[in-house]
Amino acid sequence: MRILSFESSAVSASVCLTDDEKIIAQSFQNCGLTHSRTLLPMAESLLNGCDHSLDDVDAFAIAAGPGSFTGLRIGVATVKGLAFATNKPCIGVSTLEAMAENLCGINGNICCVMDARAGQVYQAFFKREANTLTRLCEDRAIKLDELSKEIGETSQILVGDGANLCYTKLVAICPNLQLAPEHLRYPSAYGVARIALPALNNGKGVCASELDAFYLRPPYIAQTKKIKI
Amino acid sequence: MRILSFESSAVSASVCLTDDEKIIAQSFQNCGLTHSRTLLPMAESLLNGCDHSLDDVDAFAIAAGPGSFTGLRIGVATVKGLAFATNKPCIGVSTLEAMAENLCGINGNICCVMDARAGQVYQAFFKREANTLTRLCEDRAIKLDELSKEIGETSQILVGDGANLCYTKLVAICPNLQLAPEHLRYPSAYGVARIALPALNNGKGVCASELDAFYLRPPYIAQTKKIKI
Repeated sequence: MRILSFESSAVSASVCLTDDEKIIAQSFQNCGLTHSRTLLPMAESLLNGCDHSLDDVDAFAIAAGPGSFTGLRIGVATVKGLAFATNKPCIGVSTLEAMAENLCGINGNICCVMDARAGQVYQAFFKREANTLTRLCEDRAIKLDELSKEIGETSQILVGDGANLCYTKLVAICPNLQLAPEHLRYPSAYGVARIALPALNNGKGVCASELDAFYLRPPYIAQTKKIKI
Repeated sequence: MRILSFESSAVSASVCLTDDEKIIAQSFQNCGLTHSRTLLPMAESLLNGCDHSLDDVDAFAIAAGPGSFTGLRIGVATVKGLAFATNKPCIGVSTLEAMAENLCGINGNICCVMDARAGQVYQAFFKREANTLTRLCEDRAIKLDELSKEIGETSQILVGDGANLCYTKLVAICPNLQLAPEHLRYPSAYGVARIALPALNNGKGVCASELDAFYLRPPYIAQTKKIKI
């Protein structure tokens, strides 16, 4: 099954075309440009570059949350548009699970963290042993000091756009933290494809109108300053 | 230091723009198209997509061998052209060492293999422990049956475009072989960048005319069939 997968839940953006487990092409960028400008051109360049078109794609996948509200909306809207226009199935997967899956090949405790602002991270624990990924808790929003108590002295590989923040803030009290290698640290459309493949093969794809982003909490909007008149 | 790195030594092709250890953008494809058609357009799309130009690049890097003769020539010629036109330094690194480096984060014995045809592979052994990569032998061309004797029952992570071939042919006699995960199995421009960065920082960059491919043996050209007249 050929899947065109997207990841736009944080600052980085990526697109990946897979044929079952094989990567045909992938593109990644982490330069701070808005996904509304980069995501679809990345997909277009990727397909053109490997002589493929949307006709060759069987389904679309997206990291549908948790993550940046704007990033998720752009990614989900893009995939909805593609699925609607081509009348093909699509699927949304957990952003945190996709980034844990992207660490395949590395055994250990995996702590997926995304910067959720307001003193929180979106977070979930996973464990990989003998090439099997096990989820240890649901995706959630949690304060860093609460997370530090749960981690304690356990070994954890930090992955996600909140990994650097979490490492810097917590390593003094959680001494067995380590950062995932740079090229595997950020959310990746390949991780999305790995989660999406068995789900799509099991008929869990949906039509464009049924695809939704997963928000863990309502948008955080900074209060406007009171203006003295 | 901003490095634009290229990898075109086998079937896959990749380009990566890094700023020291950080990945700004990368593109990879493994679809069998000739690198003469794909490599420079990939670089152009990558730079345009992240609002960068050649003016922002400090140096160029290429996996200069061993590998496919045509692939190496295209990659080295591309980097020579870029370095000459921009009057910036460039560097060639070992293809095998770059793919071992791309496995950073995974500890163990690493067996890098590229299909060299004629019953041989280009190969080198490395070991990664505590985030340090150690080379255990020089890059070489070796027959598969000789390689199988050296591997014996040791654990080896196979990486490179010859990994699948090597696994299929040898796993019955070398029972502790394992394939690197799909997304880290093929040569990658990010691995090139990781090897190039300290070398360029130590002044080992060269000018365009000094860059060369590393061939381990003369080209293998299939003998033409005798034609009966």
